[in-house]
Amino acid sequence: MARRRSEIAERKDSSNAMWGGRFAEGPSAVMREINASIPFDKRMWRQDLRGSQAHVAMLGAQGIVAAEDAAAIHAGLGEVAADFEAEGVPEDLALEDIHMLAESRLAAKIGPAAGRLHTARSRNDQVATDFRLWVRDAVDQAEAALGALQDALLARAEEHADSVMPGFTHLQVAQPVTLGHHLMAYFEMFARDRSRLKDARARLNLCPLGSAALAGTGFNLDREATAKALGFDGPTRNSLDSVSDRDFAIEYLTAAAQTALHLSRLAEEFVIWASQPFGFVSLSDQWSTGSSIMPQKRNPDAAELVRGHSGRITGALVSLMITMKGLPLAYSKDMQDDKPPVFEAHDLLGLSIAAMTGMVESAAFRLDRMRAAAEAGFSTATDLADWLVREGGIPFREAHHITGRAVAKAEGEGIRLDQLSITQLKEIDTRIDERVYGVLSVDASVSSRTSFGGTSPRRVREAIAAARKRRQEEER
Amino acid sequence: MARRRSEIAERKDSSNAMWGGRFAEGPSAVMREINASIPFDKRMWRQDLRGSQAHVAMLGAQGIVAAEDAAAIHAGLGEVAADFEAEGVPEDLALEDIHMLAESRLAAKIGPAAGRLHTARSRNDQVATDFRLWVRDAVDQAEAALGALQDALLARAEEHADSVMPGFTHLQVAQPVTLGHHLMAYFEMFARDRSRLKDARARLNLCPLGSAALAGTGFNLDREATAKALGFDGPTRNSLDSVSDRDFAIEYLTAAAQTALHLSRLAEEFVIWASQPFGFVSLSDQWSTGSSIMPQKRNPDAAELVRGHSGRITGALVSLMITMKGLPLAYSKDMQDDKPPVFEAHDLLGLSIAAMTGMVESAAFRLDRMRAAAEAGFSTATDLADWLVREGGIPFREAHHITGRAVAKAEGEGIRLDQLSITQLKEIDTRIDERVYGVLSVDASVSSRTSFGGTSPRRVREAIAAARKRRQEEER
Amino acid sequence: MARRRSEIAERKDSSNAMWGGRFAEGPSAVMREINASIPFDKRMWRQDLRGSQAHVAMLGAQGIVAAEDAAAIHAGLGEVAADFEAEGVPEDLALEDIHMLAESRLAAKIGPAAGRLHTARSRNDQVATDFRLWVRDAVDQAEAALGALQDALLARAEEHADSVMPGFTHLQVAQPVTLGHHLMAYFEMFARDRSRLKDARARLNLCPLGSAALAGTGFNLDREATAKALGFDGPTRNSLDSVSDRDFAIEYLTAAAQTALHLSRLAEEFVIWASQPFGFVSLSDQWSTGSSIMPQKRNPDAAELVRGHSGRITGALVSLMITMKGLPLAYSKDMQDDKPPVFEAHDLLGLSIAAMTGMVESAAFRLDRMRAAAEAGFSTATDLADWLVREGGIPFREAHHITGRAVAKAEGEGIRLDQLSITQLKEIDTRIDERVYGVLSVDASVSSRTSFGGTSPRRVREAIAAARKRRQEEER
Amino acid sequence: MARRRSEIAERKDSSNAMWGGRFAEGPSAVMREINASIPFDKRMWRQDLRGSQAHVAMLGAQGIVAAEDAAAIHAGLGEVAADFEAEGVPEDLALEDIHMLAESRLAAKIGPAAGRLHTARSRNDQVATDFRLWVRDAVDQAEAALGALQDALLARAEEHADSVMPGFTHLQVAQPVTLGHHLMAYFEMFARDRSRLKDARARLNLCPLGSAALAGTGFNLDREATAKALGFDGPTRNSLDSVSDRDFAIEYLTAAAQTALHLSRLAEEFVIWASQPFGFVSLSDQWSTGSSIMPQKRNPDAAELVRGHSGRITGALVSLMITMKGLPLAYSKDMQDDKPPVFEAHDLLGLSIAAMTGMVESAAFRLDRMRAAAEAGFSTATDLADWLVREGGIPFREAHHITGRAVAKAEGEGIRLDQLSITQLKEIDTRIDERVYGVLSVDASVSSRTSFGGTSPRRVREAIAAARKRRQEEER
Repeated sequence: MARRRSEIAERKDSSNAMWGGRFAEGPSAVMREINASIPFDKRMWRQDLRGSQAHVAMLGAQGIVAAEDAAAIHAGLGEVAADFEAEGVPEDLALEDIHMLAESRLAAKIGPAAGRLHTARSRNDQVATDFRLWVRDAVDQAEAALGALQDALLARAEEHADSVMPGFTHLQVAQPVTLGHHLMAYFEMFARDRSRLKDARARLNLCPLGSAALAGTGFNLDREATAKALGFDGPTRNSLDSVSDRDFAIEYLTAAAQTALHLSRLAEEFVIWASQPFGFVSLSDQWSTGSSIMPQKRNPDAAELVRGHSGRITGALVSLMITMKGLPLAYSKDMQDDKPPVFEAHDLLGLSIAAMTGMVESAAFRLDRMRAAAEAGFSTATDLADWLVREGGIPFREAHHITGRAVAKAEGEGIRLDQLSITQLKEIDTRIDERVYGVLSVDASVSSRTSFGGTSPRRVREAIAAARKRRQEEER
Repeated sequence: MARRRSEIAERKDSSNAMWGGRFAEGPSAVMREINASIPFDKRMWRQDLRGSQAHVAMLGAQGIVAAEDAAAIHAGLGEVAADFEAEGVPEDLALEDIHMLAESRLAAKIGPAAGRLHTARSRNDQVATDFRLWVRDAVDQAEAALGALQDALLARAEEHADSVMPGFTHLQVAQPVTLGHHLMAYFEMFARDRSRLKDARARLNLCPLGSAALAGTGFNLDREATAKALGFDGPTRNSLDSVSDRDFAIEYLTAAAQTALHLSRLAEEFVIWASQPFGFVSLSDQWSTGSSIMPQKRNPDAAELVRGHSGRITGALVSLMITMKGLPLAYSKDMQDDKPPVFEAHDLLGLSIAAMTGMVESAAFRLDRMRAAAEAGFSTATDLADWLVREGGIPFREAHHITGRAVAKAEGEGIRLDQLSITQLKEIDTRIDERVYGVLSVDASVSSRTSFGGTSPRRVREAIAAARKRRQEEER
Repeated sequence: MARRRSEIAERKDSSNAMWGGRFAEGPSAVMREINASIPFDKRMWRQDLRGSQAHVAMLGAQGIVAAEDAAAIHAGLGEVAADFEAEGVPEDLALEDIHMLAESRLAAKIGPAAGRLHTARSRNDQVATDFRLWVRDAVDQAEAALGALQDALLARAEEHADSVMPGFTHLQVAQPVTLGHHLMAYFEMFARDRSRLKDARARLNLCPLGSAALAGTGFNLDREATAKALGFDGPTRNSLDSVSDRDFAIEYLTAAAQTALHLSRLAEEFVIWASQPFGFVSLSDQWSTGSSIMPQKRNPDAAELVRGHSGRITGALVSLMITMKGLPLAYSKDMQDDKPPVFEAHDLLGLSIAAMTGMVESAAFRLDRMRAAAEAGFSTATDLADWLVREGGIPFREAHHITGRAVAKAEGEGIRLDQLSITQLKEIDTRIDERVYGVLSVDASVSSRTSFGGTSPRRVREAIAAARKRRQEEER
Repeated sequence: MARRRSEIAERKDSSNAMWGGRFAEGPSAVMREINASIPFDKRMWRQDLRGSQAHVAMLGAQGIVAAEDAAAIHAGLGEVAADFEAEGVPEDLALEDIHMLAESRLAAKIGPAAGRLHTARSRNDQVATDFRLWVRDAVDQAEAALGALQDALLARAEEHADSVMPGFTHLQVAQPVTLGHHLMAYFEMFARDRSRLKDARARLNLCPLGSAALAGTGFNLDREATAKALGFDGPTRNSLDSVSDRDFAIEYLTAAAQTALHLSRLAEEFVIWASQPFGFVSLSDQWSTGSSIMPQKRNPDAAELVRGHSGRITGALVSLMITMKGLPLAYSKDMQDDKPPVFEAHDLLGLSIAAMTGMVESAAFRLDRMRAAAEAGFSTATDLADWLVREGGIPFREAHHITGRAVAKAEGEGIRLDQLSITQLKEIDTRIDERVYGVLSVDASVSSRTSFGGTSPRRVREAIAAARKRRQEEER
């Protein structure tokens, strides 16, 4: 067969309808494409319809719209919701955004009365309300998902409150810790993340509806009522700020990015632990991919994807921050770019938390390998030094010097510190006695570290019990 | 004179000792340079010495160090502090970091007993404690500075509760608002920023001291005592997390970046408002630079620098997030890169808030220009439409249509909407009557917008009064 | 009607199938969702099939695969391409990625021989090749689109080579320039952007195919042949680097982000120029949105969206940089997160360039307003000072002083500098004579600035001619 | 000793003169602080003086300034340079920036004639020129430093062209490679980085001097002459663009960030390789820090700092991109924030490259550990499969199946693949014969991968030779 050039056409525009085909239609096609938000904001359909129902109920109650019109609109919105639920939300660029789509559907159902829905409202306060509702849901979802991850960590930590592993600094074996203690460090990180999410929720939970285009309105609104109907703590305080503000979206992204960074650290550890030289963990088949050819090999794909996603989630935060930089008040169209980063980050965060929860639940820790690694690195050297200070009253620096000689001795003999005989130890320093073996093994070492927050199994169990109690109180 | 090549030597390394001279000294110079943190962490000297005093007082109280040694160390640290206060902190790369420098100074003062200070402590928990203390101070400073900026906004808002200006969307004149209302929008933004700072403070206010290298310690510490002595709410809960965590620094940077974005928006407005075509504001000489040649010209340098700094503050956040991505537990040296971004962002934020406060206080608003701009853009068109809906019971869409004709009429005549005669208005729609003038002027328009959070001067004054009360309660 | 709570169900999971429904299916659903790249990498189907055709043609030519098998595979791939072209690419998460999908389709068409396609190839070098091909197309598209934007700028610049407008510094009127000169500044920016794209293209144009999983292969490949068939300049040099490298994607994003920043500056200018106080431009209806109620108002939506998109494009760059940080060699699954940021940035860039081209082409510049603004700000003050230096031999600083007095005089009289009489000017300094009027008007000022690259219409026309010539040479 | 509260005063402002002391001085102190660039732009003193010399030489040659004045200024600038060289550059905030400082020094030396230096120049084109010169030097420095790092990699690669180590994907042992091949992957990355730097240099090498404030000038300049005197390829083409453009700084930062990402990958590998479970490398004492207590432990501090610095360098890029977003033409003061990120990134990059060069040069690779790891993971499984395809004509998928059984067999026996007897192999598939041992050992495997760019020692040596030749041609 003659060598030939690949024959699949090199159509530059091929994989990208926009660059080629659609743009050729001319400016109106480009404008429709860049201007329409319906491809992404349709995700807010439920929030939009709920917001409109709350608004029209208030208009009716205040006598701004006749009761029968209000009722018809309210019912009509319910029907639109049922349609969307059943059939999905159509993506028609001509109807630009979810707000126009919903209104046009409503009009089709109830006729001209639909036109009264928009009384005393503007798209500016409407979209601000919808998006806050959406972000509030996102915050709640993230917080709940992190709670489940914390529970998974708690369960595994309890199981391994005594399991010895090396504690690392600089990825060098430093001191023995327990696996339970290590997992509880992540419990604390995710507790902070959840706490940030709660703070963000409390701060965002004010309702911009009724701010109108930017200046408020002359209609006799009851903003407390709509706020309450939508589960907000009250109305926002300044109409200009209400339509110009996207702090709540940025703040959700900051919390998401910090969470993603924590996830990236645990993911990194899983990747390193799953490597053959470490061999600390076997990730379950569910979270890895195998090789038909190397049956023993298992790639930690899920962990790597979680680690990778931290980049995109942080990137989403940066996107929105840049977009908001230097925008004068009040609404500018740039702010339409608030949603895609938030939606994407939320999806990636959800997947990352769920995958990490699954990995934590199903990881098979190889305790023998962990213990062996802890024992291999003279990781109890500081225990010996501390013992000399504590029991021998020897100054810190001298204790270090003595310990250094003991390590050198053990290394020379090819044995562990706790395998040095008492004679050998006394040759190094006569002040050492038999009691020292109480700290020289890795088990003795971890047991001895009983300071609050320390790695001794007793402390770890206390921490787990306290954490479990906190979780139960939260869930109640 | 013959044309000649510039004669100042093109020494590539010239302005950069590192690339040239110092690197030529060989690896040890490079390592010293990359490894030493003293050039920046000396800013934490006060926190370091306070932390050490609290630690040694606890060691003495617990009998871990003899009372006389503890007292000597405590006093010695006080002397070191006095020296640093008087003479500054020397930057000696050989003494790598502020912790070693402080210890070496202490040893020079009190001799070998100094060696007992480091008992039951590691550089890992020490630096975590120092940096938390520093960031806590930074949070407090930022929060207080923002309070002062809020006060400046309140004062100017009160002064201008009735001053009419155009409200913009898309930088197009949309509806009249009052300058007081506009300024209060920023008050709300900075209120959220302060609220974020307070949340960050509450979350960071746990003491890592006593976590030792990573695993806790076998010494009988009283972590509650050191925490209390340093103003913390209590000790941190997990020793591994304590030395691995830099959430508090990232969270401060997120709050700083959100604040900087708000500042960038106000700065942008000042720059635009100070342009000749707008002419809404004359920034005081203090915050501008003039031109010897164009005495009437005043460049809004401070506003531009505030706007520009938002880039660097956000960049600092991104720096630290990237640095922390994917780090395994516990301490890694990468984390030494936590301080420069925080220090830089804090300096820039402080300057930005102070400059913005000064600009707000001293800005001369040109009310005539603002009013004229508000009147020029048919900015009360929505008032007319709303009046038709409210008073005439005319459906929203029809009201818009009528209004469009009125605007076209006024534009054709070259007059304002409120300059149309009642006859002219009735020609457009007979349902219009004299009462309409109650909303057609810009003053009438703003007065009519009395919904909660709206721009009517009455509402603005209420908002100012409520804000002032909140501020007073905070300060108490 | 009674006030009632909004009735559309608050289903937390509602708008997000993932968080709720799909996750409930259990781990395998989560893993499928996080692991599958087919939802985005199907955009590379054309590149994938072309790459496979090139590969199998080479395998056949080298005798690694029998000629008839190679021919069958080649033809089969063509059929798959035809199917995809006609029916689109199905998104089946079970077939994980475009590579598996394509292979499974091929197998369905030609049976077991399909299995020979993957000889001497791995998914690692395959995806690296596909993505390079895609990015190369993207670079070409962006470069061509920018060329069209440059042409639009050239046309408008030529039209306005003499049109006077104010040149701003700090958004303050500084010196008169011509609109043509101003537009040509953007021509230069986009020229640099295109030059960066060309450099990126040249650097990426090496073919990784044949690097196999990471180590190369023992088959007797002809990597030159596949490289040539796919339009590459040659094969990559190191197999490990070939599968680990995503520089080409990052470099495209850096070029895209720099372009987006330039676009954001022009967009900002359009937004400011379109504001009523400036009134320098009327954007065409195609690129703005109007208001039914305020017919005279036109929101510069497209310009704002272009400005906003610079945030998301830069965010995409940051995403990928973070994702690649600290990855050990060779392929890690994190690298699957390379595509979404590139795809999104490319789409946004395409829309931004197309929209900006349309805005430039159709903008109605209001030359009277521009000229009036240029004349209003004593913008020729530096011309007077320079004239004094040049013609009067007066030192720079003294000339400034004299000019300051002339400006003050004119300002006091409420007239322009060129409206001062020669008597008035001589009162200020006797060395001034009639010739000074040759630089005092805005037209005289711009005409006088004849230094290379300066704003004099003659220089601007020269620059346009030179630019047009460069463009023609490129297109040839 | 009674427990007592830490006594070192909690002065909030203590470590931050700005927040407390200096701000208390009032607005002028804040403005001086935020406005002055001398604390950082003094690094450009050499560029500033060279630029001024070139400018005045041209002014003299063109007769714009009298020859004797030009000569005096030229000489005076030389004296100022000598002073700065000898005594350093004083940081006087009152003299705001390096340009004013230099001029004031010149005036002190030569009197009023100094005033003529600024003829036909503005601070806008002056700073643009200075900064381009500085960045050009930075680019050259970075490029040269990377060349040295490449040379270090070449030397070590040559030394280890045959040394077998595991090639990883997903940090799982995948296939054996040689250490030389692995190091050469980084050689390629840094080659691309250098190529990007060269492109950036070529693009920036145009001289903005003579663009004046923004519009060019009426003086009869010879811009070609100043460009040439300063080593530029020619003058920039558009005066507005010249003073508004900071592309060159952003482009340097993009190149620096991509380099830093490459460095972060190698740093990550050194950290992992230096961990006890891997034990692939012992970093020299020069680039690690030890422990008095654990003499065997060595923390890879330099590698971690290099990895961490990638965050700050990328953050610097983001800073400047955000700062430039949405700035209208021409110069805005925000652009003063261009220098600190560039200076900081350049310093960090210099240290990172130098440290990495040192680490590469001095790393002690533990070949036994590497080989053992390569042999442990059945890393030649694909070699067996490929052999079956190549020599047995067995289809790819079947070959994988056979190989899977061989791996399972070896794993069951606890031996390597190449330790399976021919009998055992034939039991698995009769088509296997003795020749298979030619690929089953790790040495055989690497030797067999002779495709261009593959890991066979022969190919690696060819690659090294070709690389060395490229380097020599560059240096000539």
